[in-house]
Amino acid sequence: MKISIIGTGLIGGSIALKLKEKNFTNFVYGIDQNEENLNKALELNIIDEKADFENGIKNADLTIISVPVDSAKKILPNVLDLINEKQVVMDVGSTKSGIVDSIKNHPNRKRFVAFHPMWGTENSGPKAATKDSFTGKAAVICNKEESDENALEIVEQVINTLEMHPIYMNADAHDIHTAYISHISHITSYALANTVLEKEREEDTIFQLASSGFSSTVRLAKSHPEMWVPIFRQNKENVLDVLNEHISQLRKFKSALEKENFDYLEELIVNANKIRGILDK
Amino acid sequence: MKISIIGTGLIGGSIALKLKEKNFTNFVYGIDQNEENLNKALELNIIDEKADFENGIKNADLTIISVPVDSAKKILPNVLDLINEKQVVMDVGSTKSGIVDSIKNHPNRKRFVAFHPMWGTENSGPKAATKDSFTGKAAVICNKEESDENALEIVEQVINTLEMHPIYMNADAHDIHTAYISHISHITSYALANTVLEKEREEDTIFQLASSGFSSTVRLAKSHPEMWVPIFRQNKENVLDVLNEHISQLRKFKSALEKENFDYLEELIVNANKIRGILDK
Repeated sequence: MKISIIGTGLIGGSIALKLKEKNFTNFVYGIDQNEENLNKALELNIIDEKADFENGIKNADLTIISVPVDSAKKILPNVLDLINEKQVVMDVGSTKSGIVDSIKNHPNRKRFVAFHPMWGTENSGPKAATKDSFTGKAAVICNKEESDENALEIVEQVINTLEMHPIYMNADAHDIHTAYISHISHITSYALANTVLEKEREEDTIFQLASSGFSSTVRLAKSHPEMWVPIFRQNKENVLDVLNEHISQLRKFKSALEKENFDYLEELIVNANKIRGILDK
Repeated sequence: MKISIIGTGLIGGSIALKLKEKNFTNFVYGIDQNEENLNKALELNIIDEKADFENGIKNADLTIISVPVDSAKKILPNVLDLINEKQVVMDVGSTKSGIVDSIKNHPNRKRFVAFHPMWGTENSGPKAATKDSFTGKAAVICNKEESDENALEIVEQVINTLEMHPIYMNADAHDIHTAYISHISHITSYALANTVLEKEREEDTIFQLASSGFSSTVRLAKSHPEMWVPIFRQNKENVLDVLNEHISQLRKFKSALEKENFDYLEELIVNANKIRGILDK
């Protein structure tokens, strides 16, 4: 099977590496506006050939769109314009309602499968790609009833090859859940970094004292705006909803401290501890 | 050298394991009100003998207090009452002003060294102890001019044996810095867990979708109230100061989203990205 990867960065690159290793594909075209990334991807054997948009898509049995969600939404109709009734297109975006709505009435809608692998890091670019990143992680497929069955099967084979487990979900439900599970974590991490940068002017002290706890909470604050501004934009309503709840939860800690109500503080912490039972199932 | 560990949990246990492995000590007494922890510590060779408070301290060249900061502050005067002019006492607490103030006028003040290793996990108890936990981490010593030089030297040898690097700091400065670097991370993590638990009633969905990003931001929310309520209580003013700043930073994200000011949102994220340069020095 021939594959085109549009966007040869962290996610697209990691998928390509694994699909090549497992012989799911014997040829990968790389499409990327960033010539530097494209050359790097070629050098790292992530792709076999650089291709232009039209030829890359026309020659591929499967096209994987792995660019920021605003660009993905913009180019998907053009990608679908170029394919025939046997070719398949999938994306990897962190928001799903916008993209499925944008091609609702496209004649080739059924050749598209809306996909979101629940993995990422704060790094980006082909150099950050690693082939075993996805193993054991969840792979969300949205609105599967809007895709052809044989297109869905191809994507399920991809999921299987990446050693992920599929979860099927409505795009709107996906965007609500990811606001809780992923998007809010990024905002709190960014805000925490800004708090420390604002209040703690002695950079060397941050560096020297930073414990593993701090590093893990603030790790996501290294994530690039090119990826995250479009996600927050597309999932604005859900993210705002969760952000409001989060601020109100922080205010409870503030109030418990201000009033020196340490029983209440303990109650808040005991409740938070329940996350252990859920995460460590 | 004989050592007593008061509180045979994660930190005390990890210190004992390393000091034994490196032959810094040939005998470790364990003192703990929790009989179960004490037996477990004995079973795991963290301690060599269970001891009562008075005998354990009287027989040890060095006593290491590793209990929650409220208990540490309470028992330190009693510990100092029991020692002679050759014995040394150190603590490991995450707050320092309260404890150094509490023994300011004690006749044996100079035998005490205020210590804080910048390491911990969300787990607790002797079973969580590991001997190489501290390697490469910062070890803060506070108000060193209030300790005898030969007491300080013993603690510096401990730091060296734990493979940590010492940092010297005033106790008040320590409490300000740790509010930024450590305490606020715990509050945001607790509040994030409570946000998700409040909004996301489908526990299975949290579990299935939870990505590594979410897990790392919320990891600290597993930390026990027995340890953290006393820390927040003792460092109340500093923690409130940073918490207020953090809420105001979150409000900037909220405002950027509400007003759809995505240039401002990008600016906030670009600023947060600066943490990369500081953490990855």
